[in-house]
Amino acid sequence: MQIQIQRAYFTEQLNDVLKAISNRTTLPILSGIKIEVSSDKLVLIGSNGEISIEITIPTEVDNEEILTVTEPGEAVLPARFFTDIVKKLDGDYVQLKSTDQFGIQVSGGKSNFVISGSNPDHYPLLPEVNNEESIKIAASVLKTIINETNFAVSSSETRPVLTGVNWQFFDESLHFTATDSHRLALRKLNDKENSIEISNAIIPGKALHELNKIIEDSEEDVEINFSQNQVLFKYGHLRFISRLLEGNYPDTSRLFPENFETKLVINNNEFLKAIDRVSLLALEGGNSAIKMTIDNSRVLLSSNSPEIGNVEEEVGALNLEGEPLQISFNSRYMMDALRAIPEEEVSIEFFGTMKPFTIQSSTSNDVVQLILPIRTY
Amino acid sequence: MQIQIQRAYFTEQLNDVLKAISNRTTLPILSGIKIEVSSDKLVLIGSNGEISIEITIPTEVDNEEILTVTEPGEAVLPARFFTDIVKKLDGDYVQLKSTDQFGIQVSGGKSNFVISGSNPDHYPLLPEVNNEESIKIAASVLKTIINETNFAVSSSETRPVLTGVNWQFFDESLHFTATDSHRLALRKLNDKENSIEISNAIIPGKALHELNKIIEDSEEDVEINFSQNQVLFKYGHLRFISRLLEGNYPDTSRLFPENFETKLVINNNEFLKAIDRVSLLALEGGNSAIKMTIDNSRVLLSSNSPEIGNVEEEVGALNLEGEPLQISFNSRYMMDALRAIPEEEVSIEFFGTMKPFTIQSSTSNDVVQLILPIRTY
Repeated sequence: MQIQIQRAYFTEQLNDVLKAISNRTTLPILSGIKIEVSSDKLVLIGSNGEISIEITIPTEVDNEEILTVTEPGEAVLPARFFTDIVKKLDGDYVQLKSTDQFGIQVSGGKSNFVISGSNPDHYPLLPEVNNEESIKIAASVLKTIINETNFAVSSSETRPVLTGVNWQFFDESLHFTATDSHRLALRKLNDKENSIEISNAIIPGKALHELNKIIEDSEEDVEINFSQNQVLFKYGHLRFISRLLEGNYPDTSRLFPENFETKLVINNNEFLKAIDRVSLLALEGGNSAIKMTIDNSRVLLSSNSPEIGNVEEEVGALNLEGEPLQISFNSRYMMDALRAIPEEEVSIEFFGTMKPFTIQSSTSNDVVQLILPIRTY
Repeated sequence: MQIQIQRAYFTEQLNDVLKAISNRTTLPILSGIKIEVSSDKLVLIGSNGEISIEITIPTEVDNEEILTVTEPGEAVLPARFFTDIVKKLDGDYVQLKSTDQFGIQVSGGKSNFVISGSNPDHYPLLPEVNNEESIKIAASVLKTIINETNFAVSSSETRPVLTGVNWQFFDESLHFTATDSHRLALRKLNDKENSIEISNAIIPGKALHELNKIIEDSEEDVEINFSQNQVLFKYGHLRFISRLLEGNYPDTSRLFPENFETKLVINNNEFLKAIDRVSLLALEGGNSAIKMTIDNSRVLLSSNSPEIGNVEEEVGALNLEGEPLQISFNSRYMMDALRAIPEEEVSIEFFGTMKPFTIQSSTSNDVVQLILPIRTY
């Protein structure tokens, strides 16, 4: 291999591929980054066995030559170490050249590194994902969906399916559900025709988290292909592959109650700040529970911790309907839910002190956040 | 106690006092912040037993009324919890009012906190420091001195005096020395008359580190008072007290060799970047040693780690005198030293492969950095 490549562009792509690479891997070669150079392109590959990222760098980007290939070849190099070198080198370009025994000479400015590599033939093949079952979602919409649901996946491995987001395919809509069994986030994408045969796919929350860091807030489409146990996201020069979670996702459709007993419409940001303040006392007392009392036209948040103190804050409702109510909930779940609704006004519907309550935009039901109350009475 | 105080200004002062307060304290009351209100001022006190900070807030700052005292009094409140509340409250002002049993009601906007406190009578008295032995140094100069020396103190407690900076008082100058026995930083403040009777004082590096975060880069004088085992820094409304380290600081004056064998003048920032690059390989190999070879008009940095690889980088010297040389040193010490010399050009003098070498500005000898080489030959 012998190439010259524009350093800034290369560094950016290396940083993206790093998101799939872990140093704590059971297969040592996976701590490396694979570089495949052919006559007209360079392909970077990184994988941790669960997520794989493949980025293709062409010779020209936006009519600017960024890659010159003198001799094709392959290499596997220590990923973080190699990326650090490219990042810190002097000059606009970096040169890579094979030495003997899988090593690569990395040069830029007046620096000359020779770094040892691994045998590229030992690097595992990426899973193949055919493109029979595929949909397209604009990158900006996909990012919104991830932001609105991903925080609610479970961080515990006791029920592995709950660590993923359940994608459900209906004839003219898609539903995205995440729950850790204490709260649930549901995002609906309506008027979205698709010809997908499978009924659902559970995508690991960790994979969506990394994908969200790489794709940009643009109108460009992401093509998403599903196979038996893998999902492939194609976005520009990027291919992002994740395994799917196996198992049955619980039926969450019956969780949503109808006919509220109490309904509160409130300013999202003001309510968020009030919860944040009141939760200070709860957190200092070692828990996250805060109490809400709704009574005639008055909404009162409060918390009380023996030996620490107590707090009360009245919040102004924009609208209030139904019965008086006392309910306790986890302040962090409430703040996560409010942050996941990108609207100024939210509508909160309660179905009694012991029943889950829902939070959604006051103008749309694309996103529904559901929280189970805490039993304190 | 009953007061009203401007929230933004109060938050800033609380944050400064927090720098002396630790949650890991053997005396539980020290995790609290003491508030003393008299008719015309509020005093905040925090201490971890080693460092104490006292800030006086007057009723007016820059002709603006910031404090209204309705009733004087004292309180000791959980420091971080209380500061978080004040920071997150709504509104421009916060109200404090004593409740029974050392508690305080904290109100702002529509929030009402009642937080439990401790008995202020149980809060320890701050050490007294008389002002017989005192000097004045402009805040900006004091900050520079700390930045140029403090990084070189020892982080190990095996020789406690080395965790401090040794301040030496001469008739017309002050010397500040820090060393961890592998490298040394010496800053001289010349033409500084002082009438201090003691010959030296060893100030803990940790105290200077916190002080540096509080004082601003201004021309305002800091008055520094020394007593038997305490030092007091007075700066505006701030009093910052630290204990002094006991014991004899080693005599470092004989460490500085004369008559260099090799002398190199080099661009500080270019050299720093080159060291940073070459050290990548050394660090990946698990150590910090890099090699420098000086030979006729050529300066070569290199590092070699079996199984990882090797690197060579030539650096351009601005001037080169004396004998050829091969020497190895810790790259981190070299980078720390270069960063601590705020000049474009540095002059490095070598006295042989096994002897300490010195780094200083090419135009001034106010700061001398000394590094012991690593034996690799």
